[in-house]
Amino acid sequence: MKKYNVAVVGATGLVGGTILKVLEGRNFPIENIYFLSSKKSAGNSISFKNNKYIVEELDENSFDKSLDFVFFAAGGQVSERFAKTAANSGAVVIDNSSVFRMEKDVPLIVPEVNPKKAFDNHGIIANPNCSTIQSILPLKPLHDRFKIRRVIYSTYQAVSGSGMGGIRDLEEGEMKFYPHQIRSNTLPHIDSFLDNGYTKEEMKMINETKKILNDDSIKVTATTVRVPVKNCHSVSINLEFEEPFEMDQVYKVLESFPGVKIKDDVKNNVYPMPLDVSGSDDVYVGRIRRDFSVDNGLNIWTVADNIRKGAATNAVQIAELLINKH
Amino acid sequence: MKKYNVAVVGATGLVGGTILKVLEGRNFPIENIYFLSSKKSAGNSISFKNNKYIVEELDENSFDKSLDFVFFAAGGQVSERFAKTAANSGAVVIDNSSVFRMEKDVPLIVPEVNPKKAFDNHGIIANPNCSTIQSILPLKPLHDRFKIRRVIYSTYQAVSGSGMGGIRDLEEGEMKFYPHQIRSNTLPHIDSFLDNGYTKEEMKMINETKKILNDDSIKVTATTVRVPVKNCHSVSINLEFEEPFEMDQVYKVLESFPGVKIKDDVKNNVYPMPLDVSGSDDVYVGRIRRDFSVDNGLNIWTVADNIRKGAATNAVQIAELLINKH
Repeated sequence: MKKYNVAVVGATGLVGGTILKVLEGRNFPIENIYFLSSKKSAGNSISFKNNKYIVEELDENSFDKSLDFVFFAAGGQVSERFAKTAANSGAVVIDNSSVFRMEKDVPLIVPEVNPKKAFDNHGIIANPNCSTIQSILPLKPLHDRFKIRRVIYSTYQAVSGSGMGGIRDLEEGEMKFYPHQIRSNTLPHIDSFLDNGYTKEEMKMINETKKILNDDSIKVTATTVRVPVKNCHSVSINLEFEEPFEMDQVYKVLESFPGVKIKDDVKNNVYPMPLDVSGSDDVYVGRIRRDFSVDNGLNIWTVADNIRKGAATNAVQIAELLINKH
Repeated sequence: MKKYNVAVVGATGLVGGTILKVLEGRNFPIENIYFLSSKKSAGNSISFKNNKYIVEELDENSFDKSLDFVFFAAGGQVSERFAKTAANSGAVVIDNSSVFRMEKDVPLIVPEVNPKKAFDNHGIIANPNCSTIQSILPLKPLHDRFKIRRVIYSTYQAVSGSGMGGIRDLEEGEMKFYPHQIRSNTLPHIDSFLDNGYTKEEMKMINETKKILNDDSIKVTATTVRVPVKNCHSVSINLEFEEPFEMDQVYKVLESFPGVKIKDDVKNNVYPMPLDVSGSDDVYVGRIRRDFSVDNGLNIWTVADNIRKGAATNAVQIAELLINKH
């Protein structure tokens, strides 16, 4: 079996560290692995598959290593500065930032949803926004079957989505990372605000939904909210379809889609919750019920581990997709 | 100035205790006041306006006191058993439970929204659901001006809505009150589940919205969620209107409505949040922005103190409404 040279940029961060765990856990076929970071974290040691590695400082020459895959998980500025250099070295970049997601020649991939697009890459593949990934998994089979007309998202996002800074604010009750205390509070504010009154996070959900489903006719709006939860995002999704449906069709369509798990037995208080889902690679869907306020309307509730399926796992799955077709 | 004989049923609970504070704070004209509760809490002493009172056990004879107003805040079963007796004694019952809300001859009152209906009572006036109250305040002036076609609610509800049991579960990280741990979690489950897959809380928001706005043509759906916040509910509201609007009209309509405060300066990270709103009697509205996914669409975010405006303050305001017309 062929083995690959892999580098992880931002390996000391929350998503980068989880990429390592996922590469280990899924036994990704690795020949050589390199860990790259800013000057601040360079020199630290990282253990991977029982070996110790020293984190190297990222610079223009970091990619002269016949790399096959470079995972970027160090934020938008680092991706903006170094991703193209990495791609030009011949590696495929899988980028967790939002920098390239909406670029026309950059595929935006959720492996269960639009795998073929990954092969149209020009060296950079974008990993979608975490809340979008966990929403798009249930949306894809429903769209294929009943054609989505409109989507309304309201999110309940965990502090791990902001990295270690967010977790510290929650656990220490301070406000070093967020502009306001997050403990015992809700902040309708994720990423920065745009002139149209939406946050960047909201516009990511709106635009990425259309791009991944490859259908600009779908109408989407979003309200994204940080809640005092350590890990796993929840999303309340309201859907309107072109086609009529029966509820048993909805269940069948969802339960047969890879990566989606139905957890919906409300009479026994069973529904997806962050505490149950943390550590899982699946997207859990529950509270599935007809919305009687519109023709062909449906309400659902999804929960997923935003660091795993919402980031690290999805990124590694993209690489797996490419090597399985080699 | 005329003074009134008042009784509070459930005075030792979270809402009942806040009714006392609100009666004191607003200097409600009281001749005599009585505190009634279950056998368990009877005999306790309560201080009100610098006097000490002994809590009496509630029974069929508790209302033989020429009472003018009886506030019920002891849950649905107590209201079901005693509210009609209290009303038959000649008092006006202001009931915080959901038992009578949808009954045809029981007015469901938010004083800023439908004050005149309060005078059509037959001895019982219902105080609406907490999440409904804080949603209906901004909805009312928008409905009057642009006519609401459809409302989609997603709530972020504080544990104080469950009384002291909910607060203890959050603060002690246990699950004595809720079926699952609420700390660092989200529970898409408030009140019990119905056969249609909705919770009673969701159906309250749907049905009470139509009743208070006195318009059954409005389409409403809801997803209600408990979040690990001590006090103050937040609601993400998506609206579709019959009439077109300009954003400056929306701001004007909202800011001129009593009980509504706009808090919407996102460039300076200003938006309504539970920690800021706790203790206030107003409903705060922010994140006001056009929803581009539908004609005449609008997204807003409301936060209010669910124990005060969502329960105690609204109840006392109903009584004030009646005495000011005497």
